Formats: sequence, structure tokens, C-alpha cells
Amino acid sequence: MTKIGDAALPLHHASHGPPPPRGEELDFDKGGGLIPVVVQDAATLQVLTLAYMDRAAFDETVESGEATFFSRSRGGRWRKGETSGDRLHVVSITPDCDADALVLKVRPVGNACHLNRTSCFGEEDAPGIGRLARLERTIAERAAADPATSWTARLLAEGPKRAAQKVGEEGVETALAGAAGPDEELASEAADLLYHLLVLLRARGMGLDAVLDVLAAREGKSGLREG
Amino acid sequence: MTKIGDAALPLHHASHGPPPPRGEELDFDKGGGLIPVVVQDAATLQVLTLAYMDRAAFDETVESGEATFFSRSRGGRWRKGETSGDRLHVVSITPDCDADALVLKVRPVGNACHLNRTSCFGEEDAPGIGRLARLERTIAERAAADPATSWTARLLAEGPKRAAQKVGEEGVETALAGAAGPDEELASEAADLLYHLLVLLRARGMGLDAVLDVLAAREGKSGLREG
Repeated sequence: MTKIGDAALPLHHASHGPPPPRGEELDFDKGGGLIPVVVQDAATLQVLTLAYMDRAAFDETVESGEATFFSRSRGGRWRKGETSGDRLHVVSITPDCDADALVLKVRPVGNACHLNRTSCFGEEDAPGIGRLARLERTIAERAAADPATSWTARLLAEGPKRAAQKVGEEGVETALAGAAGPDEELASEAADLLYHLLVLLRARGMGLDAVLDVLAAREGKSGLREG
Repeated sequence: MTKIGDAALPLHHASHGPPPPRGEELDFDKGGGLIPVVVQDAATLQVLTLAYMDRAAFDETVESGEATFFSRSRGGRWRKGETSGDRLHVVSITPDCDADALVLKVRPVGNACHLNRTSCFGEEDAPGIGRLARLERTIAERAAADPATSWTARLLAEGPKRAAQKVGEEGVETALAGAAGPDEELASEAADLLYHLLVLLRARGMGLDAVLDVLAAREGKSGLREG
């Protein structure tokens, strides 16, 4: 996921996505001055927490680009990380059809839950398809590791041609497993293939989002390659 | 995503995932008898709506396996689809760390939003990495299409060996584009590769979740292939 909004900038300065809603467009009255906010990891789509904003917390979030909430238990405004050092950089803010709830997509730094967990909903691992986005993030982080001890760092250091070679090899191995191997072999070879495809994209300075954009455009236009 | 809970069965009869929380474990008092519920597509992880449950709606949801909410505007309980025919089959129910919010993962049939949209948060297309899960769902739906007009149905009808051949071919084409092609060519070939990989898995009666499980197990154990 390379299209992440600039961190620690006012949201209207971020270069991607639609502009945030204006505070006066939101219905704070229905919830007694508070609006519920679904906080979702922008890359893995994991739900990290459900929090609340009053109008002041909303305005501060838009102004600062960092998630700021109203705590019902503390009875006041708080910016995520004031005490823990963790941060939730805001990528986008989307109101629902009644303008009385928000989805906040964020790039988390550290944990979202005050119990030092990734998510308040207990899942440490990004669930389901989100694992692929987390793998992409891990590969990007490994780029800075020591090539002597990290296979990923070594592959990235060797450049796109080497990663491309691995994609070709793993594609053939996946094909053979798919045609004539047991389920476990196919799953394992396909995992190798996806891993090396992500490394190749990274070695080229690209992200999976470029590939997903192609798939979305095809599906929208011609119904998935069927003319 | 093949691990979807059985539809229209009480949740405790579903064969996958942890059991739902018990109603007496949840804090309905903090929200004046209502608990906010984040409804998320179990496969694409798209947030579909934010709704509310009172204790009775929660109990009915667990009993029926279909999402049932309390409408603040109508002032009463309603099961999704009573008027529209749309349904939200519940896959899992997860409370947060304070037991005063829920994430409901669902398999939607039809639209979640009363404005006949996929999501109350405006996104028609599953966002980000969720597009890959939606592509997998689309491929599964095409299995029933006419092979004379659907490329996907034709591939599936021809069996795993043919889809496997395509994965091998697209793997090599992705490798060549990655080593010596422009960004657009790499994105396009990688999209072909992912599409055919999903078709191959489907032709084998498998899902991407089997591959994601392998990736998760590797990352947890040895830090992503680095021993």
C-alpha cells in the first residue's frame, strides 16, 4: 500500500483521497454530542477500535492529521498516544449515509488498544485477506535489515531481476503443484509465489495497490476479462 | 474465503471461529441500553454499516445467525432485510476490550445500506486489499456461468491442469515484465497472475485462505522465511 496519506499533516494537505467531511455536516446531536468512529487500518482493513468524537475532537483530528477522540470514561478529549507514544495517523475520514457515524482509516504506529494490543477486538494478526497487506508492510520494513541475516533484505538488495527470477520459478512450481500435487503443496507454493511477487513489486518501488487497481478497472469495465 | 460460517444457523452451531460472547458479558448500560456494532464483510473486510443492538437484538442475532439491530430512529428491533430482502448472515461476533462494542463479521446477501448501496460508508467497491477477496468471490460466482460466454467459467470447466498452465505462463510473463518492462506492464501481468492463481485454487476446490494460513504460520514462526 503505497498510497498512504502524509503523516502529521493537516488532512486537507494530504495528497490522496477525498477531502474529509466538514464538521457542520455531521450529526453530533443524535448521540448526545458524540459520534461513534470506526478506526480501521488503512492497509490491512483490520478494525482497530471503536471510539467517539465530539465536535472539538473531530476538528482537532482534521487539523492535526492524528486521531483525537472524546473519552466517555475520562470525560474529555485525548489524542491517541498522549500517554503511550502510539499514534494513529489519519489517511481518510468517511461519514455514513446518515452522517452520524465515521470510518477513520489510519496508519497506526504502535498499538491502538490501551491494553497494548494491535486491536481492541483481540485479533493480534491482521485477519483474512489483510494478512497479505501486512506481509507487504513487513517486506517494506525488512528493506532496512541486514542482508546477511534477512532473506528478504538480500533479495531486495540484489535488485528486481533476481526477485523476478524467483517469481518465474515459483509460478512454474505453483503450476506443477496445481496440476499434480496435493492441496498442501499447492498452498505452500502459492504462498512462495505471493511472497516473491510482493518482493518484486517492492524491488521495483511499486505496491500491490497498483495491481489491485488493474483488477478493479477490469472488473468494472468488462466484467473480469470476459468481453 | 471458504471458511464462512453456515448461514441461517444459530451461531453456536456454526463450525468455525470462537463462540459468540454471552449477552450478560456485554456492557449495555454505558450506551443507555444500546451497544454499537461495526458490521464488516467477513471476506473483503469492508465496513458495511455501524448499527446498534439492545440485549434482545443481540440474543436474536445469536439465536438466528442473522444480523438483527435496534433502530434508534424507528425505536425498535429490526432484522436486516425484513423490508428489503437483503440479509447479513453472521460469521462471527467479537466484543472489544471493554465489552461495550462489537465487531460483527458477516456474509452479505444484497446490500447493507438502506440506500441500496453495498456500504453505508459510500464505497461501492471493496477497498484496497479487499478487492482481491471480492475477485475470489466473483470467480466463485462465475463457476455457474455459461462457458461459451465466460472466460472464467470456461477455465474452471477445463479443470485444474489448464488453470495451472496459465499460472505458469503468467508467472514467467510477470518475471519478464519485472526484470525488463515498464511499471504498467508489471502491474498488468501481476494482475493476470493473481487472477489465474485464484482460478486455479477454485478449480482445485480451495480458497486463498489456505495460502494466507501458510503465510501467517511462516511469519509467526521464523519471521518470514528468515531462519
